[in-house]
Amino acid sequence: MINTSRLMKTINESANIGKLSRGGICRLALTDEDKEMRDLYIQWLENIGLQVSIDDFGNIYGRKEGKNPDAAPVLIGSHLDTQPEGGRYDGILGVLAGLEVLTALNESGVTTDRPIVLINFTNEEGSRFEPPILGAGGLAGHFDKEFVYSRTDREGKTFLNELKRIGYHGSEGNRIQNSHCYLELHIEQGPVLEHKGLDIGVVTGIQGMDWLEVKITGQSDHAGPTPMSMRKDALYVTSKIIQLLQDTVVSQNEEATVTIGRLAIKPNSINCVPGEVIFSVDVRHSDDSVKEQLCQTIIEKMSITAAAEKVSIEINKIWETSASRFSEELIDVISETSDELGYTSKKMISGAGHDSKYMNEITPTAMIFVPSVDGKSHCQEEFTSEEAIEKGANVLLNTVYKLANA
Amino acid sequence: MINTSRLMKTINESANIGKLSRGGICRLALTDEDKEMRDLYIQWLENIGLQVSIDDFGNIYGRKEGKNPDAAPVLIGSHLDTQPEGGRYDGILGVLAGLEVLTALNESGVTTDRPIVLINFTNEEGSRFEPPILGAGGLAGHFDKEFVYSRTDREGKTFLNELKRIGYHGSEGNRIQNSHCYLELHIEQGPVLEHKGLDIGVVTGIQGMDWLEVKITGQSDHAGPTPMSMRKDALYVTSKIIQLLQDTVVSQNEEATVTIGRLAIKPNSINCVPGEVIFSVDVRHSDDSVKEQLCQTIIEKMSITAAAEKVSIEINKIWETSASRFSEELIDVISETSDELGYTSKKMISGAGHDSKYMNEITPTAMIFVPSVDGKSHCQEEFTSEEAIEKGANVLLNTVYKLANA
Ligand SMILES: NC(=O)NCCC(=O)O
Ligand SMILES: NC(=O)NCCC(=O)O
Repeated sequence: MINTSRLMKTINESANIGKLSRGGICRLALTDEDKEMRDLYIQWLENIGLQVSIDDFGNIYGRKEGKNPDAAPVLIGSHLDTQPEGGRYDGILGVLAGLEVLTALNESGVTTDRPIVLINFTNEEGSRFEPPILGAGGLAGHFDKEFVYSRTDREGKTFLNELKRIGYHGSEGNRIQNSHCYLELHIEQGPVLEHKGLDIGVVTGIQGMDWLEVKITGQSDHAGPTPMSMRKDALYVTSKIIQLLQDTVVSQNEEATVTIGRLAIKPNSINCVPGEVIFSVDVRHSDDSVKEQLCQTIIEKMSITAAAEKVSIEINKIWETSASRFSEELIDVISETSDELGYTSKKMISGAGHDSKYMNEITPTAMIFVPSVDGKSHCQEEFTSEEAIEKGANVLLNTVYKLANA
Repeated sequence: MINTSRLMKTINESANIGKLSRGGICRLALTDEDKEMRDLYIQWLENIGLQVSIDDFGNIYGRKEGKNPDAAPVLIGSHLDTQPEGGRYDGILGVLAGLEVLTALNESGVTTDRPIVLINFTNEEGSRFEPPILGAGGLAGHFDKEFVYSRTDREGKTFLNELKRIGYHGSEGNRIQNSHCYLELHIEQGPVLEHKGLDIGVVTGIQGMDWLEVKITGQSDHAGPTPMSMRKDALYVTSKIIQLLQDTVVSQNEEATVTIGRLAIKPNSINCVPGEVIFSVDVRHSDDSVKEQLCQTIIEKMSITAAAEKVSIEINKIWETSASRFSEELIDVISETSDELGYTSKKMISGAGHDSKYMNEITPTAMIFVPSVDGKSHCQEEFTSEEAIEKGANVLLNTVYKLANA
């Protein structure tokens, strides 16, 4: 069993890096805060004698040798980066629970047959550099190196320059070459487990998601002498579109989600009619054909609204993923392990993307979810109880133990 | 008569300071660009032998002595600052036309009875430091010094520190003490003169305007696993409010305007449900009681919408002005002068605020408008023809000549 207070100590210590006023964290990928967290994390890896290496995407590996060093290792991982106003668990729970798993195995003098490698993936959130899951996607060969390196944040800084700046530009030779499987513990980030009063989510896959970037161009004008009838107000048209999208999605499909999460207006001056608005649209559904149909409807409705309002519109699909289906075998092992430990569980699909999404493309993959209080995540209020964390980490430990000896 | 090509030369030269890609200007108050413009402008004042002084609000005075130095001077003025994506004429036309008036008088060897003082007022636009017309309002005693000095931009920089930083923190003793009247030439910034094919607007007053700052607080959440029914999306509610305000104003009163010009969302991350939105509301109408009633309706509608959507709302009135009525005598002098010059003109009220608004509180004041092509202003497309500028500057010259000898 894992040592919960030791695990909570690292979680609490990590929560000081990028701490916000209401207890949440801002530790965007490849910022100074990310560097500080990585430096501390590497100390922790070295403290328990892991062999540390860094690849050319800044992914950090900590390897515990197996009896058979040539056997394909069991991989565990998640991410240390957060949203701009993120919580204390999204991502880092999986990394630090992995660290605790390896610490507990060491303490018990256990050496598994297979090596175990713990991975921190770079830029999972996608909030600074779009799209998300860049480090895992790069490792899995889903994104090529040029694509990853050239991603830019909203100040025009590139992934590559920022990676070098914080000193985490490792070598391509360090990318993990072979693996037996990949496991990830994560908070659910939704309300299902809590509502059903369950301990563990056995994650069977991840729903598909599309990201659009939309630019509405009207005409900037003076807020005073310009009559309402002469305006081409890009924000007014955007507000129409936001209503329309939400109402369409809510009325057409109970399970689908649509989110306008990022929005900027120009010239953004109190006495100017807005001439330009750029915003993002995030569309998700577990059924790819439903999602695609919905996305098509959304694009059509936006275009019709813009034409009716005589403003121009530009729509770009900036990310598109289909639903992922995890390994049946791993799903069964996690399910059994949870049962053996006496925990209640449920198979479920994930509404959020994870590093597992792209790891699933190169190795058998599955995930373990623990409940999120009120289903909240990507906010400072995000919370998961110590008891829930303990159960999740124990499922991870025992699943890893089985797989590393199989 | 004024020398149009000499005037256009200064206008074109000024348009290089803060120049934007589509020909517009970004020369926000008390920035490096404002300093560069002020430095060049002071050279121009000194080149024609004016006596230059700067007051404690950074207002710049250029004085041409009269035959009777003790007589109350005729003041002319406007502003050198612009919107973030402003045009080449809003503000600076009045200042440089004033410079041309004094240059033309000098050239003709004319010394008027009264001194003439040309003023550049600080922060007319209100885009960097809210509210607008701070320099003129400070001079007129409408705003006290502590209020003006403590205004902060969106990065938290104060008016006073920025005034000192650019080296334009002059002395209180330099504030102009007495005056015969104040005159301001400005572009109309609306479509009326152009639509009616007229040369000159004789401005009889300025409509009242209220500025509100509204903060909607919902709940930030994850864009994926959070069902639509569980969200408290602050941007969705804001989009409802934007629709409602515009539809209310358009349906209730043809003449009123409402503008949401500034808006920021938090956390502003592509995969986060927006938890907070802060936006401005600008409400204008020439009749104060209509404006007040409209403002009240808007506040009520916003509050009802927020309550229905279960988000919290905070509404602050950050600026409020009633309608201004300019000096009848000056209005008549301008009107007659325009007629004498053979120009067509019309009495009209201004939809925009101007330095004249607060100067009107301490001295007889009136304004001269020239047409704006397509009524556009507060945008890079803002344009007024050379011919129109010539006519406006000639009305200014001849009006000033009369008043400075009266
Ligand atoms: N787990 C998580 O929050 N990932 C970010 C990618 C997404 O938006 O789903
Ligand atoms: N003239 C002008 O654009 N002034 C700014 C103040 C306002 O918004 O009316």
